[in-house]
Amino acid sequence: MISVAQARGRILAGLKTVSREVVPLTEGLGRVLAVSVSARLAHPPADVSAMDGYAVRAADAVAGAKLKVVGEAPAGHPFAGMVGQGETLRLFTGSHVPGGADTVLIQENAQAMPGAIIVNEAPVIGRHIRRQGQDFALGDLLIAAPKRLTARDIGLAAAANYPWLQVFRRPRVAILATGDELSLPGEPVGEGGIVNSNCAMLAAFVAACGGEAVMLPAVGDDVAAIAAAAEAARGADFLVTTGGASVGKHDLVQAGLAQHGFNLDFWKIAMRPGKPLIFGHAGEMPVLGLPGNPVSGYVCAVLFLAPALAAMAGLGEVPPVFEAARLRGSLPANDAREDYLRASLSWQEGGWAVAPFGRQDSAMLRPLAQADALLRRPPFQEALAEGAVVEVLRLVS
Amino acid sequence: MISVAQARGRILAGLKTVSREVVPLTEGLGRVLAVSVSARLAHPPADVSAMDGYAVRAADAVAGAKLKVVGEAPAGHPFAGMVGQGETLRLFTGSHVPGGADTVLIQENAQAMPGAIIVNEAPVIGRHIRRQGQDFALGDLLIAAPKRLTARDIGLAAAANYPWLQVFRRPRVAILATGDELSLPGEPVGEGGIVNSNCAMLAAFVAACGGEAVMLPAVGDDVAAIAAAAEAARGADFLVTTGGASVGKHDLVQAGLAQHGFNLDFWKIAMRPGKPLIFGHAGEMPVLGLPGNPVSGYVCAVLFLAPALAAMAGLGEVPPVFEAARLRGSLPANDAREDYLRASLSWQEGGWAVAPFGRQDSAMLRPLAQADALLRRPPFQEALAEGAVVEVLRLVS
Repeated sequence: MISVAQARGRILAGLKTVSREVVPLTEGLGRVLAVSVSARLAHPPADVSAMDGYAVRAADAVAGAKLKVVGEAPAGHPFAGMVGQGETLRLFTGSHVPGGADTVLIQENAQAMPGAIIVNEAPVIGRHIRRQGQDFALGDLLIAAPKRLTARDIGLAAAANYPWLQVFRRPRVAILATGDELSLPGEPVGEGGIVNSNCAMLAAFVAACGGEAVMLPAVGDDVAAIAAAAEAARGADFLVTTGGASVGKHDLVQAGLAQHGFNLDFWKIAMRPGKPLIFGHAGEMPVLGLPGNPVSGYVCAVLFLAPALAAMAGLGEVPPVFEAARLRGSLPANDAREDYLRASLSWQEGGWAVAPFGRQDSAMLRPLAQADALLRRPPFQEALAEGAVVEVLRLVS
Repeated sequence: MISVAQARGRILAGLKTVSREVVPLTEGLGRVLAVSVSARLAHPPADVSAMDGYAVRAADAVAGAKLKVVGEAPAGHPFAGMVGQGETLRLFTGSHVPGGADTVLIQENAQAMPGAIIVNEAPVIGRHIRRQGQDFALGDLLIAAPKRLTARDIGLAAAANYPWLQVFRRPRVAILATGDELSLPGEPVGEGGIVNSNCAMLAAFVAACGGEAVMLPAVGDDVAAIAAAAEAARGADFLVTTGGASVGKHDLVQAGLAQHGFNLDFWKIAMRPGKPLIFGHAGEMPVLGLPGNPVSGYVCAVLFLAPALAAMAGLGEVPPVFEAARLRGSLPANDAREDYLRASLSWQEGGWAVAPFGRQDSAMLRPLAQADALLRRPPFQEALAEGAVVEVLRLVS
């Protein structure tokens, strides 16, 4: 058995980045930028006013001075002329500061009269002007690829004048559930059957990770059917199977994939839940064989599939991020397997408190859905008392 | 001026929950469940084996006993008969435990021979059986509405045999940018013009919050045009405007909306950035008038628009969640306005450390895009020294 970290390393090692595509700017949210965004213009494009007020020459704008208003320049309507001695120009937030002026007098400090203003309070030279390129200059690197794009990145790319973005396409993940006992949700459940919950859960998980899921029709416990389904998955970037990964004689996934020259990389990981994980390649296609129990499958998806999707989408190695929390209750010493306990989190006295659930059965979906986090226990960790600091992985999807 | 909390309360007070729609299970991710999911079947549907092994009567299965194998029952193929005295049935993970048997002997503890097994180690009665309904019983409440659905919820609803879900439809948010100076990204920029970054950023933000954005064509600084655009927004659940919200005479949003009987609720909030926020109703439609500076607009979106979307989507009052962090550097005393500083976060010695950026200009998009969090400072907060505990709001989109 290999460790969780070794398994993740081996899965990520051979993954290829998917190809690029062009998307409209407004479709860029959550996508991974493939080509960096550099500024196509300066922002602001010129020296602009940060306030509503008057463009003045600081030397003229002493308290009590009367300045002649030579015009007004709303944002988007720059003044063509110059502000001369004893003159001023009416400005608004975003207006270009005209030639000749060096300062903005805010309107609260001016008294308006027909064709002129009186300066009530002398401004500091250079005040209330946003300088050309203060946010960014033409050519500045604004968003370095690869990066998963936020709404703010979309705004920044818009400001830089990009109507399109080059992103990595969504990795396509084919999902194949195996087992004679499976039916689709809402369809008749056979005698001894159960509803296939893994496919829909994993498809949603793939979508939450920015991938595109293809749900293959489930196949029974039959080597030829599994082989045919693996063939149907060609064209996907990654194949995930569920079930049939343990030691029973009805565990036929490896046998089915073998028809495609399946190359096993590893089988079995020192973790709980999720021990009977399979990873290998069917031809070029990476194949992750998840255990059939939904909790095992989900935990393996968090630890292995999510990083695989990030890597294929161009983000490189993005391991799960653990945070610290204080244990509520106590835990016995751990054995040789890295343990991931389903748990609830609460914010107490300025930090997270984590309470592992009493039942940790890997077939129980309900507590999984109710969990806020996974509590990680390294192999052979000693017994833990109330208040011990532990590592938690917050579950967001 | 009113406080941030008062403003949020007044915005949320009058919002109506949107209507429901039906979506396929696999489209449910991130949607808000409108009708609770109760189990349409029990899970497991019967007593099932948790391991590969043999169904036995514990009384018979003493060490050294030889038991006759009466058949095998893979998952999905229950055994029709009973296990009698001195008999056993071959089982696999997920197989139904047959009548007569009370225990599963794992295969590692049995020695197989033709038609029989020898018990190597006596099992504990009842072991390795997952009881019918152990995860949930028929009729159990599994997912209480309203709830934003995770991949795990989708898996749980699948297991409960739901092919469809009733969710609240995505709130439709119309976005109207105002200003003579605006052009769309990639289109020619006029003399004195700038690119409209707010619309694309806010549309992405609305999508990230589970809403559906409608970008209206931007309008110039013209009362009639603003009035016409507000008319075009009818049918949306919420109208967001950007720009034209401060005191200059080119701030015409209120005047434009007044043509639709605009009912102003409040204007100006004791916060920075974002002071000149407008909220009111044009007829029935709530209208949030954001400042034109993109940082102000974004911060107001985080503090007011995100909770408004959650409320309209049926989730009730969901205020932003602040976490604790230690300050890097120092900060002077704050004034009368609640301050939201753009900042970077790093994980240090088991907790978050927050470093506010040196420049906090509300027109600068680049530092906004680079920020990990907003550091909140209450009005009149005293000066803070290195290491002070402060509140941060992590930015995820």
